[in-house]
Amino acid sequence: MKKLINSPDSVIADALRGMAAAHPSLAVDLENRVVSRAGGVMAGKVGLVSGGGSGHEPLHGGYVGYGMLDAAAPGEVYTSPVPDQILAATKAADHGSGVLHIVKNYTGDVLNFRMAAELAEDEDIRVVSVVTNDDAAVEDSTYTAGRRGVGGTVFVEKLAGAAAEEGADLDTVAALATRVNEATRSFAIALHAGTVPAAGKPGFDLAENEVELGVGIHGEPGRERGTMQPVHDLVGYALDVIHADRPIAGDQLVMLNGQGGTPLIELYGAFAEAVAWIEGHGGTVARSLVGNYITSLDQQGFSITVMSLDDELLRLWDAPVSTPALRWGR
Amino acid sequence: MKKLINSPDSVIADALRGMAAAHPSLAVDLENRVVSRAGGVMAGKVGLVSGGGSGHEPLHGGYVGYGMLDAAAPGEVYTSPVPDQILAATKAADHGSGVLHIVKNYTGDVLNFRMAAELAEDEDIRVVSVVTNDDAAVEDSTYTAGRRGVGGTVFVEKLAGAAAEEGADLDTVAALATRVNEATRSFAIALHAGTVPAAGKPGFDLAENEVELGVGIHGEPGRERGTMQPVHDLVGYALDVIHADRPIAGDQLVMLNGQGGTPLIELYGAFAEAVAWIEGHGGTVARSLVGNYITSLDQQGFSITVMSLDDELLRLWDAPVSTPALRWGR
Repeated sequence: MKKLINSPDSVIADALRGMAAAHPSLAVDLENRVVSRAGGVMAGKVGLVSGGGSGHEPLHGGYVGYGMLDAAAPGEVYTSPVPDQILAATKAADHGSGVLHIVKNYTGDVLNFRMAAELAEDEDIRVVSVVTNDDAAVEDSTYTAGRRGVGGTVFVEKLAGAAAEEGADLDTVAALATRVNEATRSFAIALHAGTVPAAGKPGFDLAENEVELGVGIHGEPGRERGTMQPVHDLVGYALDVIHADRPIAGDQLVMLNGQGGTPLIELYGAFAEAVAWIEGHGGTVARSLVGNYITSLDQQGFSITVMSLDDELLRLWDAPVSTPALRWGR
Repeated sequence: MKKLINSPDSVIADALRGMAAAHPSLAVDLENRVVSRAGGVMAGKVGLVSGGGSGHEPLHGGYVGYGMLDAAAPGEVYTSPVPDQILAATKAADHGSGVLHIVKNYTGDVLNFRMAAELAEDEDIRVVSVVTNDDAAVEDSTYTAGRRGVGGTVFVEKLAGAAAEEGADLDTVAALATRVNEATRSFAIALHAGTVPAAGKPGFDLAENEVELGVGIHGEPGRERGTMQPVHDLVGYALDVIHADRPIAGDQLVMLNGQGGTPLIELYGAFAEAVAWIEGHGGTVARSLVGNYITSLDQQGFSITVMSLDDELLRLWDAPVSTPALRWGR
């Protein structure tokens, strides 16, 4: 597998140099590997930090900016950031009113964020952590006790970020993040595995007529190996699983997400099927995202993330956001 | 090759249904296959229309909206839209002050847009056409007499769109579009070919150590088949070709574009190399885009598009834009 890189060892450093050059709104600390807002301290604002293994771009660095994160800590590809790095991100996000850690539920991430939170408390920064676990595919998995944190993390970052921008305090922002996570479910299907640069070959093998149903964002196994079907049926499978876990009713926020190697024209086609399914079950797609928002390198496939909206969540979703990957209203 | 589709015949119709559902700011005419702004007539504004084969998303439908296009006509995958379809787009874009056709230089596109322009003139809509031909790779190609129109088309749509939004008249907008095209050069390198749904297999074959240097957006051959190199060298090759054709000096607008199947983390790494090359040659990257802006289905690879900026072009680039794929300032 050919990769557009200099060497597997330099992938993160090279990408961070590119992010720094592409986005003057970001401050990129190449030594500590922290992406934060260039604006400096915003007195009184709760800080939001996320992070995790790289390879899921634009997650998380692409969501640093007005109305979303204050800082992100990108680890090596598919590898948790280290505690000192998360501590540096926490300090960069600290405006004196405490910091929320948004942590996808993976054992390494949870452990390292917890250690970073303790280090931050030693420096008198109050930290509250919210662990996302929205993947409806499996109860436990290769890298997790409990469900995996996946696409719902984007919703948590946007909605908690909007609340923090409005001046909500740390406990309020954390409670909102928890509520968003609980209202959100995701399911992913892979057609062709992504390739980790250091491995040099796809992370798993799928035959020409096979798909992985319920795949994780690092190619972890899902519920079952299935047969390739028209997108109508694949989307229906995903939404059936989500609906059985948490009924889809009323106004929905829907993300039809690409895993990195699937073209936008196919994602739009998949989204059309998702809308038809949801409307056929009495729901409404009130807001949506279609595109690459949480990826798995060059993996081919999609995920669907669905959240029930109420007036508060709708207002926070529509609030202005200005980050490299999500931008509206300013 | 597995595709996330219902059938090769329904790809465009399904994608348009998805676009319509995802973007309330768009009016999608499923019968005529025209994507236009939902806002209706804007008296006195010059209308901008583009179009071409599908498979290059977000081009062109993703660039319909405030500050860019008024309407787009998507053909079948890698196939020109038909004259009646382009005529329908032209009517949808007509606000009474004439319409600019922005046409990528491909024989079919040029021919069908010309016929559509004649049909529009019969209905008393004045049309001026600008043909983009920014690809520095080859002088003539599989589907063109003369150079191919590629990534520079995005710059033309943004900058001419900003001028039209400001109230410039048709001749002024057309002259600006011509000037932008002339100031812009692109070069693309493919690592792995994309797959047209109806074909079911990659459009061309590259060995594990090969790349196509100067590839077109439909997988057309470039200058030569080369050996896989570190991204530093691939980016250097591309910029050397561009620089020899039109010297890169002063403030530059740079797009580091993915061909659809290359992950964002790699595009950022490639962009870092482009910035280093340009700064090493005395230029400055004043503005940039990094991501999937003009794609070739799921093809792996990148293109670089470079334009020299002056005060007017910089101002028009920074002007507000609100489309599905490009959005800032409002």
